[in-house]
Amino acid sequence: MNSTIKDRVRKAKEASIALAAQSTDVKQKALAAMAEALDANRARIIAANSQDMQAAEEMVRRGEMTSALAKRLKVDDGKIDGMIAGIRDVMSLPDPVGRTLDALELDSGLMLYQVSCPIGLIGVIFESRPDVVPQILSLCLKSGNATVFKGGSEAQNSNRALFQVLVEAAGSITGIPSDAFQLMESRDDVNAILEFDEYIDLLIPRGSNSFVRFIQDHTRIPVLGHAAGICHVYVDEHADPAKASGLVLDSKIQYAAVCNAAETLLVHQKAAADLLPSLVRDLMDASVEVRVDEASAAILASKGLQGWKAASEEDWDTEYNDMIISVKVVEDVDEAIRHINRHGSGHTDSIITEDRGIAARFISLVDSSSVMVNASTRFSDGYRYGKGAEVGISTNKIHARGPVGMEGLMIYKYVLLGEGHVVKDYAGAGAKAFTHVRKDETFQI
Amino acid sequence: MNSTIKDRVRKAKEASIALAAQSTDVKQKALAAMAEALDANRARIIAANSQDMQAAEEMVRRGEMTSALAKRLKVDDGKIDGMIAGIRDVMSLPDPVGRTLDALELDSGLMLYQVSCPIGLIGVIFESRPDVVPQILSLCLKSGNATVFKGGSEAQNSNRALFQVLVEAAGSITGIPSDAFQLMESRDDVNAILEFDEYIDLLIPRGSNSFVRFIQDHTRIPVLGHAAGICHVYVDEHADPAKASGLVLDSKIQYAAVCNAAETLLVHQKAAADLLPSLVRDLMDASVEVRVDEASAAILASKGLQGWKAASEEDWDTEYNDMIISVKVVEDVDEAIRHINRHGSGHTDSIITEDRGIAARFISLVDSSSVMVNASTRFSDGYRYGKGAEVGISTNKIHARGPVGMEGLMIYKYVLLGEGHVVKDYAGAGAKAFTHVRKDETFQI
Repeated sequence: MNSTIKDRVRKAKEASIALAAQSTDVKQKALAAMAEALDANRARIIAANSQDMQAAEEMVRRGEMTSALAKRLKVDDGKIDGMIAGIRDVMSLPDPVGRTLDALELDSGLMLYQVSCPIGLIGVIFESRPDVVPQILSLCLKSGNATVFKGGSEAQNSNRALFQVLVEAAGSITGIPSDAFQLMESRDDVNAILEFDEYIDLLIPRGSNSFVRFIQDHTRIPVLGHAAGICHVYVDEHADPAKASGLVLDSKIQYAAVCNAAETLLVHQKAAADLLPSLVRDLMDASVEVRVDEASAAILASKGLQGWKAASEEDWDTEYNDMIISVKVVEDVDEAIRHINRHGSGHTDSIITEDRGIAARFISLVDSSSVMVNASTRFSDGYRYGKGAEVGISTNKIHARGPVGMEGLMIYKYVLLGEGHVVKDYAGAGAKAFTHVRKDETFQI
Repeated sequence: MNSTIKDRVRKAKEASIALAAQSTDVKQKALAAMAEALDANRARIIAANSQDMQAAEEMVRRGEMTSALAKRLKVDDGKIDGMIAGIRDVMSLPDPVGRTLDALELDSGLMLYQVSCPIGLIGVIFESRPDVVPQILSLCLKSGNATVFKGGSEAQNSNRALFQVLVEAAGSITGIPSDAFQLMESRDDVNAILEFDEYIDLLIPRGSNSFVRFIQDHTRIPVLGHAAGICHVYVDEHADPAKASGLVLDSKIQYAAVCNAAETLLVHQKAAADLLPSLVRDLMDASVEVRVDEASAAILASKGLQGWKAASEEDWDTEYNDMIISVKVVEDVDEAIRHINRHGSGHTDSIITEDRGIAARFISLVDSSSVMVNASTRFSDGYRYGKGAEVGISTNKIHARGPVGMEGLMIYKYVLLGEGHVVKDYAGAGAKAFTHVRKDETFQI
């Protein structure tokens, strides 16, 4: 079994070389064919999906699946329209391959270029949502990366139908090696994929936090993703009360189930008496459960406000992904920064202040991939950040951080063009000197 | 014991935040103080080193250390001059922190900046050479990264003296938290460091291939480095004979013990009869052991050339780091590319050809971090690539690849400056549209 999987992964790796060298034109044709094939195969895809939906509904009845999860499985004409639009979006993005990132003359006739190229073979492991198949497949194809997919067993029929339709369409275009795209289906395949660090250059897990954490804990392959999103809003002494009110609410309730929603509200001690009661009242009016520290409790009690709960130490480290928020009064911006760096997840944190010096301090000392000033944490998202399509959100400290678009699927190679240049001429007595002159030119040969 | 190590690593992590926010001016002052302190403490450093040298010479006598390794341990005035010059070189490089990588208007009053920032806490684990301490410490300080060091026990006294001199000097400058730099000394510390993925963001191992491989195999922390350097020179059908002769020799013998020296020579079948005998003769005249495949052997025998050996399959996967080369005749550029992608290490590979189309094919299909055309593999090096100072050479496919300068110690954060902007205004019915206008401006607040 494992050897078959290995053969397929190795084939994908070998095909990745040819795919990496494909022209923009060929890749655009393949993407167009994929979009058309989705449109032409609606019935086939929806039929496959209805098999998954039947099984899912049975599981919901038996209490083995939540109805929310079952709902996310559903593929209908509207969803297919969305998939087609997603592929067309990827077509509209510039080809990220072959960009000259740097051009440096080392000496007369000796030019060094740094040229963007695909990473190689990407492993994508995802839970439920079949929408991920066309999204990631189109991003990987456009960026010249081969891809090994493994979807959740709940969506097995949907994933297989989508994958076959898309890869047949792409493979019909001369120059696209269909071996470059492989779908894995069994649970064994996941463990095999995690061990193929010899072939797979990057893993992208898409799913719950515990799922991502499991992947991170069980592979030596670099993982692009985030396991937690504990985001903070800090209301400074110099906050504008109207902005504070709008931003706290939006960061918490605009969509509470996602990673860039706020989990903890920090309020400067000098602003707390004035602002905290109304902020908490607004949150509770919006059906948010509010868990407060002792200092906040004293202020809220003194204003006769009830309905909140007491926070425990655990709350500061909890990602609720739900209509719950923890609240803490801090001494100043430095305590806020320390709290965020200690308890946050390096995802997204926001300060509300009219003081530019304090904002600058917050920006430079908060160690998160996105730092907001007077803006909602919810803006931290690939689409809103203008990336067109999102690979994922990364809390890594290397490679790609924050919302990641196709740039997260790219690396570079150095190309050195000489005329017989040898290193011995640049070493020892009478060594020639390097010129090291940066040039504004594009690599071509 | 482990808790003490953990405390020190945690302290370094905490100090990394303040260090990351330091101004260029403060960092330059600290670097200047470090250079001066090395000069002022020559006797102390050399005395500490002579303790290590005595122990090393004893080990050489007992056959427990090679004399080459003992020699690399030695610190004298000339080496200290080199360390001082290295720190001055780092001072002359631009500060990589706080560069605006991108500026995008999302909407009126809502500006997104992508700003370069340090990675955080770097773990450096190195064998013998004490020169690594000032080199890496200065690179990390300039790039705002805290650093945990662990050197080899053979250089323990030298490393400790250098570390103390340098960190005392840096810490004497207001704004530099000396906790940011920690020296670990015991063997237990290495295993502890490898487990601190909660604190350490990136590991840089410096040493032998087997040492780097050990580190890669025993940690979940991302590792910047390379375990092998199996570099190829491919002499094409359309090679210029004079260039081929100079480039093959330089790639192999200019410095055979290093990772960017060539290990395998591939020759196009149509060029082999003409060029192979003289190439092999030149190599053997330069005292290189030549191990050839059967096709090469037939050609060499037919010309009456002797003194070469037969290559085995193992040779194609061997990094000699020595005056040995393997030689193979290939059918065409595509077989050369396949051989390189299968047996190479993704480090540096060179083609010798006058045909631009074939060069272009080689460049686009060879999956290595450096691809040379009519230039020696030995050029693949941070100094020659104009990076000033080198962190290491990476064969990773993410983050940083090839010779890596300070850019390998950097990541970025997104900074979003708003005026109370909330996401709900950009969602649902009547949603505002994002402008997504790229701006040519620098982040400042």
